[in-house]
Amino acid sequence: MSKTSVIAEQGKQEIVITRIFDAPRDLVFRTYTNPATVPDWWGPRNLKTTVDRMEVEKGGVWRYIHDDPDGNVHAHHGVYHEVAAPERIVNTYEYEGYPGSVGLVTTTFEELPGGKTKFTEVSLYPSVEVREGVLQSGMTEGAMELMDRLDELLAKLQSQ
Amino acid sequence: MSKTSVIAEQGKQEIVITRIFDAPRDLVFRTYTNPATVPDWWGPRNLKTTVDRMEVEKGGVWRYIHDDPDGNVHAHHGVYHEVAAPERIVNTYEYEGYPGSVGLVTTTFEELPGGKTKFTEVSLYPSVEVREGVLQSGMTEGAMELMDRLDELLAKLQSQ
Repeated sequence: MSKTSVIAEQGKQEIVITRIFDAPRDLVFRTYTNPATVPDWWGPRNLKTTVDRMEVEKGGVWRYIHDDPDGNVHAHHGVYHEVAAPERIVNTYEYEGYPGSVGLVTTTFEELPGGKTKFTEVSLYPSVEVREGVLQSGMTEGAMELMDRLDELLAKLQSQ
Repeated sequence: MSKTSVIAEQGKQEIVITRIFDAPRDLVFRTYTNPATVPDWWGPRNLKTTVDRMEVEKGGVWRYIHDDPDGNVHAHHGVYHEVAAPERIVNTYEYEGYPGSVGLVTTTFEELPGGKTKFTEVSLYPSVEVREGVLQSGMTEGAMELMDRLDELLAKLQSQ
């Protein structure tokens, strides 16, 4: 069983992803917002991730590029509405292959006993239909793989 | 009957406002994005509106302040995800009196025959509950008054 939970309630416009990381909140937040290590976890393992822009502050722009094994390029970008370290990030999200369909993502980091951190990401989509399309595109598997990779990176950082 | 339509479908997380302005799209877009005239239309007539920040470009921050007759101050802010003149603006929205509840607003400007413009604003709220709270706070009347004021300003600008 995956340690990541992906919840998409019927008729709602959002997808909620939660994961408990065995790492303290400061480390999770710092790792999540570090452009140097984003390529190590953001996205599925079979894609190469490049950080084009990542200005982690209000109004900052982020843009990540995926290269797949067939030479295709997929870019994603957005802006940060709020960066409240180490608790909360609110940003917009747009997949450039489907332009004009903008989502709003709220990510929260909660301290749990025993040095653990509860990660929650709520993605709000412009319509139920767009959300269904995202689910059908394999988002659930992708999110689980991404969370596993972040978990592995956090374990590695703590073992150093 | 008001010329502004406010639609909030049951169970959805959004409010859709539409209005047809008797003004060409370029003028509507320019007026909508002009900090100098925002105080003339943004908000109800009994509040004084001040533009604190308004950087109309990707990643730009906007912040408007309302002073009410009792000396209370209400501030609103957000960031621009996209500014595609003269067609479309996507921005975040947060009322500082209710912090942490961030919405996503998509505004489109469509050319209609006869030099008219169809204005559509879709506001996506973090939950159905927050949307209901916004509706109960008098948002519908506020939006209608705001749209009437923008209409008046557009008429004045065209009569010059």
